[in-house]
Amino acid sequence: MNKAAIGVDIGGGSVKLGVLTPGGRVLFRSQFLTLRQEGRAKLLDELDRHVRHLSRLAKDKQFRIVGIGIGAPGPIDVEKGFIHFFPNIPGWKNTPLKTILQKKMGLPVYVDNDANVMALAEFCYGAGRGVRTMIGLTLGTGVGGGIVLCGKLFHGSRFSAAEIGHLVVDENGPLCACGNRGCIETYVGTDHFTREVRSRLKKAPRSVLKKWMGEQGLKLTPALVARAAKRGDKLSQRMWLDTAEHLGTALAGLVNILNPEKIILGGGIAQSGDLLFKPVRKAIHKKAFPIAARSVRVVRAQLGVDAGWIGAAAMVFQKW
Amino acid sequence: MNKAAIGVDIGGGSVKLGVLTPGGRVLFRSQFLTLRQEGRAKLLDELDRHVRHLSRLAKDKQFRIVGIGIGAPGPIDVEKGFIHFFPNIPGWKNTPLKTILQKKMGLPVYVDNDANVMALAEFCYGAGRGVRTMIGLTLGTGVGGGIVLCGKLFHGSRFSAAEIGHLVVDENGPLCACGNRGCIETYVGTDHFTREVRSRLKKAPRSVLKKWMGEQGLKLTPALVARAAKRGDKLSQRMWLDTAEHLGTALAGLVNILNPEKIILGGGIAQSGDLLFKPVRKAIHKKAFPIAARSVRVVRAQLGVDAGWIGAAAMVFQKW
Repeated sequence: MNKAAIGVDIGGGSVKLGVLTPGGRVLFRSQFLTLRQEGRAKLLDELDRHVRHLSRLAKDKQFRIVGIGIGAPGPIDVEKGFIHFFPNIPGWKNTPLKTILQKKMGLPVYVDNDANVMALAEFCYGAGRGVRTMIGLTLGTGVGGGIVLCGKLFHGSRFSAAEIGHLVVDENGPLCACGNRGCIETYVGTDHFTREVRSRLKKAPRSVLKKWMGEQGLKLTPALVARAAKRGDKLSQRMWLDTAEHLGTALAGLVNILNPEKIILGGGIAQSGDLLFKPVRKAIHKKAFPIAARSVRVVRAQLGVDAGWIGAAAMVFQKW
Repeated sequence: MNKAAIGVDIGGGSVKLGVLTPGGRVLFRSQFLTLRQEGRAKLLDELDRHVRHLSRLAKDKQFRIVGIGIGAPGPIDVEKGFIHFFPNIPGWKNTPLKTILQKKMGLPVYVDNDANVMALAEFCYGAGRGVRTMIGLTLGTGVGGGIVLCGKLFHGSRFSAAEIGHLVVDENGPLCACGNRGCIETYVGTDHFTREVRSRLKKAPRSVLKKWMGEQGLKLTPALVARAAKRGDKLSQRMWLDTAEHLGTALAGLVNILNPEKIILGGGIAQSGDLLFKPVRKAIHKKAFPIAARSVRVVRAQLGVDAGWIGAAAMVFQKW
């Protein structure tokens, strides 16, 4: 029988999972709501049910599942597969997830941080194919990072590396949820981004965003600000340039420290394309050391919402 | 015969070299002025003379030199042993140093950046013994960095990694020689540090520093500011706290990104001991993620002015 792995992405809203071949072919996909309030046991039962279902489907297609990979939020002891806690899902403090699931499912289980497995997904099957050293960043409400060095996910001494979202670019900048000021998350995190636009709108009554939000009742999102910028709205264009400048400072720092071949940006803000990427690349060339700046390419993530579970499955093949 | 290596540290002021055993015993030391104006050929001849002399001394003691390691400033292609340029010594642009020296000396030659070999020295024989993942920082006029990951110097994709001195902590901070604002070098680099003290002295006529500099004609150095702080001088104490706060922001960033076991600080500013280290440790605990902050120790470098050539020699044993 051919080999395949099941990848699982435990998110605050939903759990996504699927079956992947070592070559990166997606055989099956599945998904269920995270059911936060119903607790850990319920989620694990539901997960068990879905995994068994996917395993049967795979078996019917002559694929044997060799392991299960889990991507999950928050700090994790990767070696032990131990969840310290989930930032947004109650009831998971100190969960020996690997042990529990291996017993439940009778298969090898590997657990890693969601941002790490997303970076691994892009490295194995997405925008990072062919490089050895890369950084993956997911720009969502928070900013998650994963670092691949010499072809392997880098975890640091206590599996706590790659917390890139809280790199400070301005000690006197906006207050971050982590307690510091001016973390890069306070510029490119979705909530911070829209809050800043709202604040700037108070002084720009003619911005087309006002009209769209007022008359048409559209919701203020990075995508809307991108649309407005493409239509020539000055406030929106300025907003993207400023955001790129801050992100460029952080990325130039990473480029100087890690000298990667690629930086791969995914998530909400990265969907704006050239509006963000062009000035970000320019900022890196201005701010980082020439040799390092010339050797890095900043590109968009390719795997979208599937990156989490695909990377979790990729982890199984890397360990296997 | 026993094995030994020759390490060479090419600095802007002098070239230091010595003979080291794999166990870290210093057998012989030597040194000569860098003679900037006399050019590359002259320096290489002088280096050749010293290396031959040290080799003879080693041979008399029953040690065979198995290779020569060179630490040098500026960007270097470590694989080819190729010097792009020296920031402070003219006449070295595009020098294939490894090739030249191997021909001249008939021994394997390895070349790396001076800050990298200093970090390697501390890792092999100094404050970094026993760890796997560490960062070495030398706080001089500039700030040099070296990163050891999983027991090996980390170079990045084009040997340009670990340029930690230009990590930005305040996009609106003081202007740096690199063109950016608020690089950590603009707070902890010796010249920036004393310039800031001078500026603060204008508003603090009663600082004991004024007396020492005026009546006693003492030179303003970080060491003098440390002495004043220990004597209770408010301006000096404030200066150390502020410096530690900025350095703490940068180190917290590194701790979040690399999750190292140790950060080793050497050079001028680090000589102030607890005045700097205590508030820096406190700042890291405040600013970095708990797991990463708890797993790092921030300590003083142990090898002082010998770190460069010792690390260069250590590189020979690592490659051998």
